[in-house]
Amino acid sequence: MSKNDDDLQPWRTIASTTVLKDRWIDLRADTCVTAAGATIAPYYLLQPSDWVHVLAIDEADRAIMVRLYRHGLGDFSLELPGGAQDAADDSPEVAARRELLEETGYVCGPMVHACSLSPNTASHTNRVHFLVARGARVSQLPVREAGETMQTELVPVTALRGLATGGAIMSALHVAGILVALDKLRAGSPGSTAGTQL
Amino acid sequence: MSKNDDDLQPWRTIASTTVLKDRWIDLRADTCVTAAGATIAPYYLLQPSDWVHVLAIDEADRAIMVRLYRHGLGDFSLELPGGAQDAADDSPEVAARRELLEETGYVCGPMVHACSLSPNTASHTNRVHFLVARGARVSQLPVREAGETMQTELVPVTALRGLATGGAIMSALHVAGILVALDKLRAGSPGSTAGTQL
Repeated sequence: MSKNDDDLQPWRTIASTTVLKDRWIDLRADTCVTAAGATIAPYYLLQPSDWVHVLAIDEADRAIMVRLYRHGLGDFSLELPGGAQDAADDSPEVAARRELLEETGYVCGPMVHACSLSPNTASHTNRVHFLVARGARVSQLPVREAGETMQTELVPVTALRGLATGGAIMSALHVAGILVALDKLRAGSPGSTAGTQL
Repeated sequence: MSKNDDDLQPWRTIASTTVLKDRWIDLRADTCVTAAGATIAPYYLLQPSDWVHVLAIDEADRAIMVRLYRHGLGDFSLELPGGAQDAADDSPEVAARRELLEETGYVCGPMVHACSLSPNTASHTNRVHFLVARGARVSQLPVREAGETMQTELVPVTALRGLATGGAIMSALHVAGILVALDKLRAGSPGSTAGTQL
């Protein structure tokens, strides 16, 4: 084993401090030591709860999406409905159904897991889960929070890949989730020999 | 115009405070007001410099990737080489060439822009740029920093889509960048009538 291989071990965390914690942020600073003996400090980590988003498709093959103001982007952003998985949400699916209903007023059929990714492997300890469902239909009026400046948009599923690869969808998280979900949809479409039927 | 449409305006920022700023983090808290008159505070924003990553492909159609320890994930992560665009980097391409060389010891041919996305439209003000290049070849030994616990991996380009959609690549940013870059590669491949020749 070369010296390089010897060094290829996870860091050890030897100290951990909460820097800032309130309803909106949970920021921690670690002191880490690499296998080569280097001390890395402070190493900041954000530890929100998991996030969930759903590609919900109606009977006319349209994705139920939201266009919402995003203050990081400083502009409106076309994204899949979703949000944080609350403590009361037993699973990503429960959270996704709640968020879909609150943000758009839609319900949908059975959900299939598309992927669970790290929003940022360097800085975030949580995961973002993407689900896919068909049978989306309006059930009620949206119930949006004060900070949710958004409207519902119905986007033909056939247009989604182009929107995700062509710059119309700016969120890297949603580009990832949508492109993976489209792969799952294609694998599960009638006539395919592989994948989950959706 | 309905009340809902009236409310669909960007937030106004009426105050902005630096919460924490050092070499590793730049965290700001804004006080915002929505068109409907709701006050949103504190709204935390992270404002790192832009990030760049490159899908560099060698003559044997292998992507030059890195497997590196990522403390947010708490594990090793398979990603494209890259990092922050420094003040001295005149463009994302300059930064990508520098990072590719430092992290892997590789150089490459002309770079083509794949996409520029928001790493997180809610919390991050910066962009992550993905570039694609062929003609990657070893030029020198890597010059890695103390906090870069990584090794180079050569991944057949034909395997990349499966790795990105199947959970072997955990970073949502890299899943997005890789899947968009593969679309650009396919569009630019010999025999195609569209896209950039790569």
